[in-house]
Amino acid sequence: MNVAFLGLGAIGLPMARHVASHFTLTTWNRTQSKATAFAQQHGARAAATPREAVQGADVVITCLPTSKEVEGLLDGADGLLAGLKDGATLVDCTSGDPTTSQRIAARLASSTQRFIDAPVSGGVSGAEQGTLTIMCGGEEADLTRVRPVLETFGKKIVLCGAVGAGHAVKAVNQALLGVHLYAASEGLAALVKAGVSPTLALEVINASSGRCNATENLIPQRVLTRAFPRTFRLALLEKDLGIAAAFARTQGVSAPVLQLTTELYRAARRELGEEADHVEIAKVIERTSGTEIRG
Amino acid sequence: MNVAFLGLGAIGLPMARHVASHFTLTTWNRTQSKATAFAQQHGARAAATPREAVQGADVVITCLPTSKEVEGLLDGADGLLAGLKDGATLVDCTSGDPTTSQRIAARLASSTQRFIDAPVSGGVSGAEQGTLTIMCGGEEADLTRVRPVLETFGKKIVLCGAVGAGHAVKAVNQALLGVHLYAASEGLAALVKAGVSPTLALEVINASSGRCNATENLIPQRVLTRAFPRTFRLALLEKDLGIAAAFARTQGVSAPVLQLTTELYRAARRELGEEADHVEIAKVIERTSGTEIRG
Amino acid sequence: MNVAFLGLGAIGLPMARHVASHFTLTTWNRTQSKATAFAQQHGARAAATPREAVQGADVVITCLPTSKEVEGLLDGADGLLAGLKDGATLVDCTSGDPTTSQRIAARLASSTQRFIDAPVSGGVSGAEQGTLTIMCGGEEADLTRVRPVLETFGKKIVLCGAVGAGHAVKAVNQALLGVHLYAASEGLAALVKAGVSPTLALEVINASSGRCNATENLIPQRVLTRAFPRTFRLALLEKDLGIAAAFARTQGVSAPVLQLTTELYRAARRELGEEADHVEIAKVIERTSGTEIRG
Amino acid sequence: MNVAFLGLGAIGLPMARHVASHFTLTTWNRTQSKATAFAQQHGARAAATPREAVQGADVVITCLPTSKEVEGLLDGADGLLAGLKDGATLVDCTSGDPTTSQRIAARLASSTQRFIDAPVSGGVSGAEQGTLTIMCGGEEADLTRVRPVLETFGKKIVLCGAVGAGHAVKAVNQALLGVHLYAASEGLAALVKAGVSPTLALEVINASSGRCNATENLIPQRVLTRAFPRTFRLALLEKDLGIAAAFARTQGVSAPVLQLTTELYRAARRELGEEADHVEIAKVIERTSGTEIRG
Repeated sequence: MNVAFLGLGAIGLPMARHVASHFTLTTWNRTQSKATAFAQQHGARAAATPREAVQGADVVITCLPTSKEVEGLLDGADGLLAGLKDGATLVDCTSGDPTTSQRIAARLASSTQRFIDAPVSGGVSGAEQGTLTIMCGGEEADLTRVRPVLETFGKKIVLCGAVGAGHAVKAVNQALLGVHLYAASEGLAALVKAGVSPTLALEVINASSGRCNATENLIPQRVLTRAFPRTFRLALLEKDLGIAAAFARTQGVSAPVLQLTTELYRAARRELGEEADHVEIAKVIERTSGTEIRG
Repeated sequence: MNVAFLGLGAIGLPMARHVASHFTLTTWNRTQSKATAFAQQHGARAAATPREAVQGADVVITCLPTSKEVEGLLDGADGLLAGLKDGATLVDCTSGDPTTSQRIAARLASSTQRFIDAPVSGGVSGAEQGTLTIMCGGEEADLTRVRPVLETFGKKIVLCGAVGAGHAVKAVNQALLGVHLYAASEGLAALVKAGVSPTLALEVINASSGRCNATENLIPQRVLTRAFPRTFRLALLEKDLGIAAAFARTQGVSAPVLQLTTELYRAARRELGEEADHVEIAKVIERTSGTEIRG
Repeated sequence: MNVAFLGLGAIGLPMARHVASHFTLTTWNRTQSKATAFAQQHGARAAATPREAVQGADVVITCLPTSKEVEGLLDGADGLLAGLKDGATLVDCTSGDPTTSQRIAARLASSTQRFIDAPVSGGVSGAEQGTLTIMCGGEEADLTRVRPVLETFGKKIVLCGAVGAGHAVKAVNQALLGVHLYAASEGLAALVKAGVSPTLALEVINASSGRCNATENLIPQRVLTRAFPRTFRLALLEKDLGIAAAFARTQGVSAPVLQLTTELYRAARRELGEEADHVEIAKVIERTSGTEIRG
Repeated sequence: MNVAFLGLGAIGLPMARHVASHFTLTTWNRTQSKATAFAQQHGARAAATPREAVQGADVVITCLPTSKEVEGLLDGADGLLAGLKDGATLVDCTSGDPTTSQRIAARLASSTQRFIDAPVSGGVSGAEQGTLTIMCGGEEADLTRVRPVLETFGKKIVLCGAVGAGHAVKAVNQALLGVHLYAASEGLAALVKAGVSPTLALEVINASSGRCNATENLIPQRVLTRAFPRTFRLALLEKDLGIAAAFARTQGVSAPVLQLTTELYRAARRELGEEADHVEIAKVIERTSGTEIRG
C-alpha cells in the first residue's frame, strides 16, 4: 500500500516514522523543509502540495491541529481532493470535531473514496513507541483495509461507531482530563492552604476512590515539581473541551460540569497564552487562591 | 490495649471484627441489638451507653454517618466524655468535617486525652478484607500509639497533617469522585445519544488520559450493567461534597467546579431520595438527557 | 410601499395587523387557513407560497420561531428567493441567531436586495398595542427606507450595528431575563423555606439594588399567584439562551454564568416540556428545593 | 427615647446624623476621633466603649462591616452586654448573616432585651437623604417600639419575618445584584467584541425584558463612563453573596447560579483587592475577554 502523511507536527512526525518503516510513504508539511528533512532521513518522498502528496496513495493520513486545517487542505488546484484517487481512504488522526468530519466524509462519499476519523491518545512518547490508542469512526470494512497502516503506530485500535464517533470519544476523553485537572487543583489548593502536604494528599487519594490519571501522573510529575514541561498546549485542550461541549449541546445533553469547565479554560487560555501547557491550568487556581501546589 | 468501637454500620462492623480478633473490644451501637449480636459472635462486650463503652479503653474508635453524630455522643451523663479515661485516644473514623473535629479535639486537649481524625477509604469490601486506606490528622506520637489497632483493618495509613487534615483529605477525595462521576455521565450520555457504544467509549478512555476510578470501575460495573448496587449512599457523598466545598470556602479558595458539583448533588439527593446509591447520579443526567447509558 | 408578512404566530399576527392598516399587505403562513382568515378580516391578500407572497413586495417581513425556519423558506421553486424583486429589503423579526442572519444577508448581498435583522421585544401585548421595541442590525440607509413599516408596530427602533447585531442584542436581553428568573427563584425558594413571605421579600428587593423586570413583574404576577399564564414558551427562551451562549463563545468571551444558566434551561426544557411557559422555570427550583414560592 | 449608635462608617454616619436631629444620641466608633468629631458637630455624646455607649439607651443601633464585628462588641468588661439596660432593643443595621443574628438574639432573649436585624438598602445617598429601605427581622411589637427611630433615616420599613429574616432578604437582594452585574458584563463584553455599541445595547435592553438595576443605572453610569466610583466595596458584595449562598445551603436549596457567582466574586476579590468597588467586577470579565465595555 502507498501511504501519504500530511502534518509532521510533534505527534505526526514520530507516527510517520513508523509508517515509513513499513510502507512506501509520501509526506507533506506546511513548512516544507520539515518534510524534505524527514524524507531524506527516513527514505520517504516529500511532496510540494497536498495534491501531489496524495496522488497514487491508497491511504492518506492527516494529523493537524484542528479540523479547520484539515478542511483547508481539501480544495483548490493544489488541494487534497484534486489528487485523491478512487478507492483511497482518508484517515484523519487530528483531534478534530465530529461535525466537520461528517461534512468531509459527505464530500467523499459520492465516489469510492472513504473517510475514517482516527484521533490518537498517548502523547509524543506513545507516538514514538508506537503504542498509541486510536479511536476510530467509520465503516468496519474501511478500518480493516487501513488497519495494517494504523498498527505501525497504534497498539489499541477501536472502532467506536460511524464517522465522527472517533472524534467525539476523543473530545470526551480530553474534556474529562480537563475537568479532572481543574477539580484536583481546586481541592489541592485548599489542602495546601490548610497546611496539608499535597504529596501526602495525593498518595492517599491515589489509593482511594478519587484517583484519576491527573492525580496519579500529571500533577505529581509536573505541578508538585514545578516542572510544567510543555508537551500539550492548553490552547488545544481548550479547543477539545469546546468540541466536547458543542457535541453535548448538539446531542441535547444538559452538561453543566463540562460547559462550566470549558468556560474556565477559555478564560485561562487568554490568561496563560497560546504556548502554555495544559497542566499549567493549576496556576490559574493557584493565582485565585493565593497559594502554590508544591510538593 | 483495650479498645472501644462505637458505630457498627456497614463499614464499622467489619472494621470492628478485625479489631476484635486482636484486642479486647467493647462495642456500642445506637440500635443496641446490633452490638449485642456482634459481641456474642466475636467475643466482645456490648455496652449500653457511650460512657460505659469507653470506660477503661485506651483507644476509642468512632465510625458514624457524620461529625454531628460524633459530637452528639460526647455530652451528658451517659456521654463519651463522662467515661473517657486519662491518656485515652479518640480515633474518629467517620467521614467527618475538619472544623467539627478541631472543636472536638479542643475539648479533649485540656487533659491527656488525644484526638485523631482517621476516615477510611476502600468501601465495605476493603473493610472486610482489612485493606482500607486510612487518612489521619493529628500528632505523630498519638498515631504511633494507636497504629497497631488501625493496622488490623488498614493497609495504607498516612498522617496527612494536624487535626482535621484526615477529614479534609477524605472530603477532597470524595468530592473528586463526585465530580468524576458527574462529568463522565455527561460525556457518556452525549456519546450514547450519538450512537456510540459506552462500552467501547470507556475501553478507549480507560486506555487514555481521561481515565479515572469512576470510568475504570464504577460506571462499567454499575451503570452499564444497570445493576446500581447500593453500597454507598448518594446522600453521604453529597454530604462529603458539602464538606469539601465548605473547606475550600474556609481556606479562601475559589473552586467553581467543586461548588457547582455540590449543588448538582444537592438537587439529585432530593430527586433520588436518601437511599439511592452514589452511582445513581448517572440517572439524573440520563433523565435530563432522555437517554440511558447501558452497555 | 408593498409589504409581505410571513409568519402569523402569536406575535406576528398583531404586528401584521398594524402593517395592514397602513400598507398594501400580502401574507403567508405555514398553516394557510390562518393567512386566509387574516386576509379576509384585515383587507390583505393571502399567498399560497413564500415566492408568491414576496412578489412585488418592497419590504418582506419574516417572523418565525427560529432562524432555521427563515432559512428554510429561502430556497426551492416556491421559495422566497425565487420571488424577491430587485431592491427589496428582507426584514427578519424572528428572534434569530446572528450567524444565520449573516449567512442569509450574504446570499442577498450580490444583488440590490438588502437584509435587516429586527427582532422585537414587548410580548403579545406590545405587539397588539404597537409599542414594541425593535433592535436592528444592518445598514442605516436600509433601515431608513423600511422604518415607516416598522413604525406601525414599534415604538422604539434602534439600529444596534451591522447585520446580526439586532439578533445578538435580543439574545443577550433574553439571556439576562433567563438568568434573572433563575437566580431570583433560587433566592426566593430559600427565603420561603426560612419562613419569609415572598411578597414582602419582593417588596423590599424591588425597592433595592437587586430589582429587575423578573422581580418587579413576572414573579409577583405569575409565580406568587400560581397563575403561570402561557405567553412565551420556555423552549424559546432556552433557544435564545443558546444563541446568546453561542454568540459569547464565537466572540471569545468566557461567560460562565450565561453558559451554566443555558445548561439549566436545557435540562428544564426536557423536564417541563415544549409547551411550558418560560416563567415555569421557577417550578424546577421549587421541585429541587421541596418548596413553593406562593404569595 | 435615648438612642446609641455604634459604627460611624460611610453609611452609618449619615444615618446617625438623622437620628441625632430627633433623639438624644450617644455614639461609639472603633476609631474614637470620628465619634468625638461627630458628637461636637451634631450635638451628641461620644462614648469611649460600647458599654458606656449603650448605658441608658432604649434603642441601640449597630452598623458595622459584618456580623462578626457585631458579635465582637458584645462581651468583656467594656462590652455592649455589660451596659445594655433591661427593656432595651438592639437594632442591627449591619448587612449581617441570619445565623449570627439568631445567636445574638438568643443571648438577649433571656431578659427583657430584644433584638431586631434591620439591614438597609439605598447606599450612601439614601442614607444622606433619609430614604433608605429597611428590611427587618424580629417581633412586630419590638419593631413598633423602635420604628420612630428607624423612620428618621428610612422611608420603606418592612418586617420580613422572624429574627434573621432581614439579613436573609438583604443577602438575597445583594446576591441578585451580584448575579445581574456579572451576567450583564458577560453579555455586553460579547456585544462589544462584535462591534455593537454598549450604549445602544443597554438602551434596548432597558426597554425590554432583560432590564435590571444594574443595566439601568450602575453599568451606564459607572462602567461605560469608566468612572468606577468607589461607593460600595466588592469585598462586601462578595461577603453578601457568601451569606446568601450559605443561607441557601442551610435551607437545603440547590442554587447553582448563586453558588457559582459567589465563587466568581471570591476569585475577583483576590484579583482586584479589598478596595475595589463592586461594579469593578466588570473589569474581570473585560480582562478574560480582552475587551473594554466603554460607552
